[in-house]
Amino acid sequence: MSKEITSMQEDYSQWYNDLVIKAGLADYSAVRGCMVIKPYGYAIWENMQKQLDSMFKETGHQNAYFPLFVPKSLFEAEETNAEGFAKECAIVTHYRLKGDPDNKGKLIVDPEAKLEEELIVRPTSEAIIWNTYKGWIQSYRDLPLLINQWANVVRWEMRTRLFLRTTEFLWQEGHTAHATEQEAVAETVQMLNVYADFAENHMALPVIKGVKSANERFAGAVDTYCIEALMQDGKALQAGTSHFLGQNFAKAFDVKFTDKENKLDYVWATSWGVSTRLIGALVMAHSDDQGLVLPPKLAPIQVVIVPIFKGDDQKQLIDEKVKVLMQQLKAAGVSVKYDDNDNNRPGWKFAEYEMKGIPVRIAIGARDLANNVVEVARRDTKEKMSFSMDGLSDRIIALLDEIQVAIFNKAKTFRDDRITPAETWEEFLKLLDEKPGFISAHWDGTSETEDKIKELAKATIRCIPLNNQLENGKCILTGKESSQRVLFARAY
Amino acid sequence: MSKEITSMQEDYSQWYNDLVIKAGLADYSAVRGCMVIKPYGYAIWENMQKQLDSMFKETGHQNAYFPLFVPKSLFEAEETNAEGFAKECAIVTHYRLKGDPDNKGKLIVDPEAKLEEELIVRPTSEAIIWNTYKGWIQSYRDLPLLINQWANVVRWEMRTRLFLRTTEFLWQEGHTAHATEQEAVAETVQMLNVYADFAENHMALPVIKGVKSANERFAGAVDTYCIEALMQDGKALQAGTSHFLGQNFAKAFDVKFTDKENKLDYVWATSWGVSTRLIGALVMAHSDDQGLVLPPKLAPIQVVIVPIFKGDDQKQLIDEKVKVLMQQLKAAGVSVKYDDNDNNRPGWKFAEYEMKGIPVRIAIGARDLANNVVEVARRDTKEKMSFSMDGLSDRIIALLDEIQVAIFNKAKTFRDDRITPAETWEEFLKLLDEKPGFISAHWDGTSETEDKIKELAKATIRCIPLNNQLENGKCILTGKESSQRVLFARAY
Repeated sequence: MSKEITSMQEDYSQWYNDLVIKAGLADYSAVRGCMVIKPYGYAIWENMQKQLDSMFKETGHQNAYFPLFVPKSLFEAEETNAEGFAKECAIVTHYRLKGDPDNKGKLIVDPEAKLEEELIVRPTSEAIIWNTYKGWIQSYRDLPLLINQWANVVRWEMRTRLFLRTTEFLWQEGHTAHATEQEAVAETVQMLNVYADFAENHMALPVIKGVKSANERFAGAVDTYCIEALMQDGKALQAGTSHFLGQNFAKAFDVKFTDKENKLDYVWATSWGVSTRLIGALVMAHSDDQGLVLPPKLAPIQVVIVPIFKGDDQKQLIDEKVKVLMQQLKAAGVSVKYDDNDNNRPGWKFAEYEMKGIPVRIAIGARDLANNVVEVARRDTKEKMSFSMDGLSDRIIALLDEIQVAIFNKAKTFRDDRITPAETWEEFLKLLDEKPGFISAHWDGTSETEDKIKELAKATIRCIPLNNQLENGKCILTGKESSQRVLFARAY
Repeated sequence: MSKEITSMQEDYSQWYNDLVIKAGLADYSAVRGCMVIKPYGYAIWENMQKQLDSMFKETGHQNAYFPLFVPKSLFEAEETNAEGFAKECAIVTHYRLKGDPDNKGKLIVDPEAKLEEELIVRPTSEAIIWNTYKGWIQSYRDLPLLINQWANVVRWEMRTRLFLRTTEFLWQEGHTAHATEQEAVAETVQMLNVYADFAENHMALPVIKGVKSANERFAGAVDTYCIEALMQDGKALQAGTSHFLGQNFAKAFDVKFTDKENKLDYVWATSWGVSTRLIGALVMAHSDDQGLVLPPKLAPIQVVIVPIFKGDDQKQLIDEKVKVLMQQLKAAGVSVKYDDNDNNRPGWKFAEYEMKGIPVRIAIGARDLANNVVEVARRDTKEKMSFSMDGLSDRIIALLDEIQVAIFNKAKTFRDDRITPAETWEEFLKLLDEKPGFISAHWDGTSETEDKIKELAKATIRCIPLNNQLENGKCILTGKESSQRVLFARAY
């Protein structure tokens, strides 16, 4: 199978698409820009959801569900937000089809079923949610309101990529309401930290926490915090955002509360989200030319066992050993598959499970059995080891932990090596082409300069890192005064 | 609080709406026919999902995700299905808004962003899924294909009710593909049994398994199997359906496979679904004038503990006892809440938790402490008991099981009493008004008669029960020959 995917070196972009398709993560669909998430890809999403959902609940959030549609009049209430999304909205204008009088068996939109007010398919839910919160919040006793939603959203993207940028995608969006600015900012930062924790400790993906420049801010936010990751081609990928919305939405939807002193004030807001885009990040960050490399904590199957045998007698002996091992692994919460399907040869299976990124492969043959050992192969390093059958499950469990850490460390070493300072515009351009990654450079702080840099170099400011060191310098493009470096990159 | 809900006797329909709102399950929204599922209602849905999802996986199904939108040309491919849903479709016709030149700050649909082909917001996903399956199925080795999707769907309903009938709702839809008719029928029946198991053993809702008459069949199905439940007002509610789709969708989307003999044939299909409507059924089947009555297996909070004390010393003693009890209950997987919020009095809390349907309430006062007892109240029977603190957690766990069974038995006794045979048309009409429920009556088997009965009596055939007894008789309306009784009812 591995022959069928383009190598990373040859064409990174094609490598990614081939991999997503061949590993069975997703498929193209008949709907422009929308994809089908196949069972194996969806199983990764389920693992992500499970972990994130428990982290949200541990930090006091509850799930709820708000309508898919936003009436146009609500959508436009917060003007900056509306403007930001207006150009990429799917719009429902009619509610009925009827038989086509000129074409039996075909349907046409019934012109008599035109909606009085158009409905926007949510690109994000601040508008519909804050319109609802208005009815839920009267007093400080109703605050904080800490709600998350798992949902689909639609943004009419012109250029789409499997997982990374699709017209419809799945995500979670947290929407919280607070009595004070300070509390809302603290929530924004808390959720950024939850995302960073998830990315680093579950996805094995090192991230830089930072704040967006005005140009890259969420439409309607006062501040957008983000986690930024680096892919193996040196391009950056925004992996999650957490927005401090100030009182913008409370003012647009007139959501006020009486505080302890009986004073009326607008509510403070945050919103934060991550999406199925994370699956794209996971694939791009760790995989290789043989296929996916999945961190054990998110792998739908963590261990696969392949028997190598001649005849039923050998098979039966192997089965007995495997049965015990599987019980032990399952009892420890390890997801394990025994592939004794005899339609496929072991070599085919090895390639297949490499493609699928199963972290640990165990092969058991008749001779192994005689020697009381098994062959264990790590997907990440492709290293093969001989493990004794005694205490095997414990060693496998330890190995899974080791792999989780190794994948993170490898990605971190790569990422750290790709944060490069640039002192001049020439150096900046040269680095972007020759050593793509995060480029740490001075910037004069204006949107105009950022626009110009984007136009000239196709690079954007990914973030101003949190706790950034102050340092006097000159803007990489204009030479104007600057008090700190920011991180530039070409990005997905 | 209980004063605020209309009594069931006075107005069943208003009682239901009041209850859904006051118990915090859902709220009306700004979007016609759509509701907001509030955290408490969504927590019930999460419990339902978790259980159903594990039952689907145990029976070999995997989750996946297909696009929200269906291009019109695909939607109309299976003509019966398309016809059945054409009148209730939300239709996306444009993909961009722009600033209103006549009204600064407002937006209008950009007429230049009209889609070449309209997109239907899925009312059900057979079309988009079978169009995808075409690419996935070539040989018998690709079968069976056993996939489920958790998703939102939209059906433009004219008359909506919270949970029971909403324009957008959440559901799961299973879509399977098989090599033989027999296997597909077996799958259809298997999933009907899964639904019945879930309804009876988790929702505590007795159901009748049956087959729909042609009039009530899913558009595009060969046979629709269903589970039918009875609400406390004697109206029936369809709680889940499982469809044998024959080769209808395979033919519409040209999905063929080569069998073991290398012969080409169309694939056999099933689909099956349950939705957030089940939350409405749960509420209507068990609750009373004081509020919700939730079966322990689906209750987001199974046990609530309320301290009754004067002063910090008493409180501290109670806290100590509660801490141990909570640990024991949590270790046994019981969801428990300790409400020691001193803003509300115990009486207010009792009413609140009755409204919310918490199955077991434990009150601990200082005198109880001295006597080594607690007061335990069952939500279902409102019985109050004194339990010793010794072995308390075990007794509470046993009590939860007892309540689960009691709620089911109560509903079953009610339901069984409401299956009444009718021999004449007059008796049929009289029963519908005076003892509403399932009416078991002969029917001549024609759609015309069923239509006429619906028109005259507002009752429909809910199902032909599985393994129905054959019995010669005369149709209740036409007097024509009939070989079996079917179940009629007025229904939600």
